[in-house]
Amino acid sequence: MTKSHPPHSPLGLHRVVDPPGVLPQTAWRLDASAAIAADEVRIRVGRLNLDAASYRQLGETYAGDPDKIRAAVLEIIATRGKMQNPVTGSGGMLTGTVEEVGPDSPLGLKPGQRIATLVSLTLTPLVITDSLYRWDGRSEQVPCEGHAILFARSIAAVLPEDLPVPLSLAVMDVCGAPALTERVVRDGSVVLVIGAAGKSGSLSAAAARRAGAAKVIGVVPSQAEAALLRASAGLVDEIVITDARNPVALASAVQAAGGPADVTVVCVDVAGCEGSAILSTTQGGTVIFFSMATSFSSAALSAEGMAADVTMLVGNGYVPGHADLALDLVRTTPALRALFERRMSECGVAAEGGQP
Amino acid sequence: MTKSHPPHSPLGLHRVVDPPGVLPQTAWRLDASAAIAADEVRIRVGRLNLDAASYRQLGETYAGDPDKIRAAVLEIIATRGKMQNPVTGSGGMLTGTVEEVGPDSPLGLKPGQRIATLVSLTLTPLVITDSLYRWDGRSEQVPCEGHAILFARSIAAVLPEDLPVPLSLAVMDVCGAPALTERVVRDGSVVLVIGAAGKSGSLSAAAARRAGAAKVIGVVPSQAEAALLRASAGLVDEIVITDARNPVALASAVQAAGGPADVTVVCVDVAGCEGSAILSTTQGGTVIFFSMATSFSSAALSAEGMAADVTMLVGNGYVPGHADLALDLVRTTPALRALFERRMSECGVAAEGGQP
Repeated sequence: MTKSHPPHSPLGLHRVVDPPGVLPQTAWRLDASAAIAADEVRIRVGRLNLDAASYRQLGETYAGDPDKIRAAVLEIIATRGKMQNPVTGSGGMLTGTVEEVGPDSPLGLKPGQRIATLVSLTLTPLVITDSLYRWDGRSEQVPCEGHAILFARSIAAVLPEDLPVPLSLAVMDVCGAPALTERVVRDGSVVLVIGAAGKSGSLSAAAARRAGAAKVIGVVPSQAEAALLRASAGLVDEIVITDARNPVALASAVQAAGGPADVTVVCVDVAGCEGSAILSTTQGGTVIFFSMATSFSSAALSAEGMAADVTMLVGNGYVPGHADLALDLVRTTPALRALFERRMSECGVAAEGGQP
Repeated sequence: MTKSHPPHSPLGLHRVVDPPGVLPQTAWRLDASAAIAADEVRIRVGRLNLDAASYRQLGETYAGDPDKIRAAVLEIIATRGKMQNPVTGSGGMLTGTVEEVGPDSPLGLKPGQRIATLVSLTLTPLVITDSLYRWDGRSEQVPCEGHAILFARSIAAVLPEDLPVPLSLAVMDVCGAPALTERVVRDGSVVLVIGAAGKSGSLSAAAARRAGAAKVIGVVPSQAEAALLRASAGLVDEIVITDARNPVALASAVQAAGGPADVTVVCVDVAGCEGSAILSTTQGGTVIFFSMATSFSSAALSAEGMAADVTMLVGNGYVPGHADLALDLVRTTPALRALFERRMSECGVAAEGGQP
């Protein structure tokens, strides 16, 4: 048993070293020492999944040289007490095993459980102890040894034993979308999912169905994506193939497919879909923006310019119970699981620990 | 009586000349001819209020030369059939008198009424007939003659006879904020308004009060703003003076003032307030982002990083009845009217037709 750090904060403010008084994500340097506070949890780390943008920046900077990339990652973690690329600002997530749980931790974890963190590495205290010797530096999957600290308000999910780890990680990566969709969709709703053949889109379609949607309309950009969706029988009722950046074209296609929508879920990482989503949604309806390519001002100005009385939600990646909900959808919806597995094989995800 | 254009669309798609098939706001050129469709309205224009960014760009390009600025505005309107600055992409709004109302118009307007458009000039067909000879080119207030067209889904508000026009325009400019605030706030809520001494912030505070808020906490950045708010007795219950970009400082100050908030309304045009707003809001609460400086990704990632289960709304500038609601708040809340009048005198708004 290690000694606790008093005083502590559920957000980990007590771990912030420099500059003092900011949030862990904003901090330059965190205290990553192994001793846990009463509401903290220590994880024995098995693998980091670096954020794609971060790994790309490192690869470009060091011209793909594995030794230099490895040294750079070690240097960042040693200096900052967390894996936050100072250029991209991004981190990634990790998997590992619960080592010690403080008596006041609200996370419900037990020593020995295999978990994935669903909060970013940018705010997770981290120490690496094996010099990353098992990592070839050639992918963002970093097998390693060391420890990480979870705070009271961290988010971690136990990896289920009945599903392959890469599948679970792929599902957890986007589990906020189906959880918020399920909250918003009412019995009998017409639901439009833009990007329905993608990971967050297909999960959202399945969540809409479970929440009682009367009709689920899926939008995809191409015949190939439509074929993928068509093979996933029952996931959507109607498939619309169109460029989701064209409001007039999308709205009229959605109308013909049984729209406008009561709830529209935007899941494509393509800029310029705000007006289309709004115009395809009925007056009094709701648009949930999950795409990180969403422009706040474009959404606000489009709605005003079209006198559209729609509720517009910023997709929050955190909804209590989101990981369990998403994993359960995959377990109980064979078409969804098949679609995920096809997507993952396309992306060449490794057999273990992959986050495509 | 002029001849109608069949076929027509409530969004004005039939007025789009180039390129065909896009929304009027996206179009390069609109048909601004005077003949109205059955659901359109023609306005006799009295004044344009150019968007501040657009006027600044014109002033800089032509080194403040009034003749050149006037010529540039005339050229834009003649070429595009609307006043949309091709560099900034922005427009502004207009005031005028209703001239002709199509029999199927749902806007409820009558010939002779003085109105202000609450949709942007970027999508409003416009013709200028007086060469702008009455405009000195020295401010964004453009007295003029000509006509403009409103579609079925345009938004226009009748200028009330009991309030000065500049005050009404200033209120209408931000009337979406109090309307959405009133929708979200429940009886007994603790409401936090970030930027409470500003126009949209003070209106939102008054709307929160009317919706039954148990406590309204106003955040301002300086003693001067606090004094302005303190002089507006009853608008807020507690005043917090702090930098709203610091999540830890704001959340602890709000806590001390009776928070966290059930509903937080972000009304300051300062970047980087997303985390502060989220951290100052209780789990299960709602944040309404009205600031155009809001970053979508920062809001989404901050909430996830703090495991904050908050509903985040993109402030929609359009809520049915928003102008009447806001004007009524100003009429019935003397402290609010006084604050608006003080703000307007600081900005040196002209006696007529100003949009500060």
